[in-house]
Amino acid sequence: MQNLKNKKILLASKSPRRKQLLKDAGFNFEIITSKEVEEIIPNNIRNNEVAIYLSELKANAYKNDLSENEILISADTIVCLENKILGKPKDYDDAFKMLSNLSGKEHKVITGVTICSNKKQVSFSDETSVKFKNLTNNEINYYITNYKPFDKAGSYGIQEWIGYIGITEIKGSYFNVMGLPVHKVYEQLNKF
Amino acid sequence: MQNLKNKKILLASKSPRRKQLLKDAGFNFEIITSKEVEEIIPNNIRNNEVAIYLSELKANAYKNDLSENEILISADTIVCLENKILGKPKDYDDAFKMLSNLSGKEHKVITGVTICSNKKQVSFSDETSVKFKNLTNNEINYYITNYKPFDKAGSYGIQEWIGYIGITEIKGSYFNVMGLPVHKVYEQLNKF
Repeated sequence: MQNLKNKKILLASKSPRRKQLLKDAGFNFEIITSKEVEEIIPNNIRNNEVAIYLSELKANAYKNDLSENEILISADTIVCLENKILGKPKDYDDAFKMLSNLSGKEHKVITGVTICSNKKQVSFSDETSVKFKNLTNNEINYYITNYKPFDKAGSYGIQEWIGYIGITEIKGSYFNVMGLPVHKVYEQLNKF
Repeated sequence: MQNLKNKKILLASKSPRRKQLLKDAGFNFEIITSKEVEEIIPNNIRNNEVAIYLSELKANAYKNDLSENEILISADTIVCLENKILGKPKDYDDAFKMLSNLSGKEHKVITGVTICSNKKQVSFSDETSVKFKNLTNNEINYYITNYKPFDKAGSYGIQEWIGYIGITEIKGSYFNVMGLPVHKVYEQLNKF
């Protein structure tokens, strides 16, 4: 991209999945280890604004440290079932409960992204519907025991075993469910 | 799976993507190199039956060689744009033409699968809608030059660069677009 010549892209994320997605999309970038950001969500905010709010919170932690030629990307992915946000599971039982709740239903995955330099900032989000088949207790136990999804909102990774055998349909971007709506990041970086 | 104990699964496919998908879904299996099957499609067949027809054609080539304990999986993926089937591109220009045609539109990817033993046979298919953004000539040229999609129906792989930056939405199974509707294969093997 002509407009990114002499620019240095920074990805503020610990997620190995976001790193892989941005790499596969052909970008050169560096990881900056996320500062600890306390994720407090205001009460008066709608679910579809939460992901953007959290990505901006992460961006704010770094924004003032950016050099002239640096562009920062931050993101946050949330999982919503019946209008409730599912976080990361606290433990095995919590993961089991979340997956049992997702079983046989459609839920939404929303990723908010913020791209900023020391001159400007743009935020956007992308939403994908994901449908699980009826999962058996055996399948849920097998998955949690073998894949330990404790770092994942909603207790699952679509690119893992349970995504292969359990997800019957999605509507929207697959990569958005993995953690980054790459097509929108590409589009926005193109005109940043 | 209890019913697959003492069974040997054979995947009749040269596709490295199908091999990876079946592996990630947790199956133990062996690859048998596809015999050359001449893919002649009868005139009186509907598009959504073509993929199944071709997967059965592949199965037929092996069926009589199966031992008592063997289960064979064969599959064929077709890409349909405005009711026309797109095959593998003949050369660079053909790939360019196909991708230009797919640009800015929605198309369908249908995978037909046949599972058989020497006692029984089941066939099924899965359909996913895929939508491309308006691709620029630069993007199409960059992709063909760097990814050489000459072994791919429709001239693209969803898991490659052009899938990351160019596909805005799918409806259905992502893995089906890659070449195998893993959730349906799992379901059918479970009760085979």
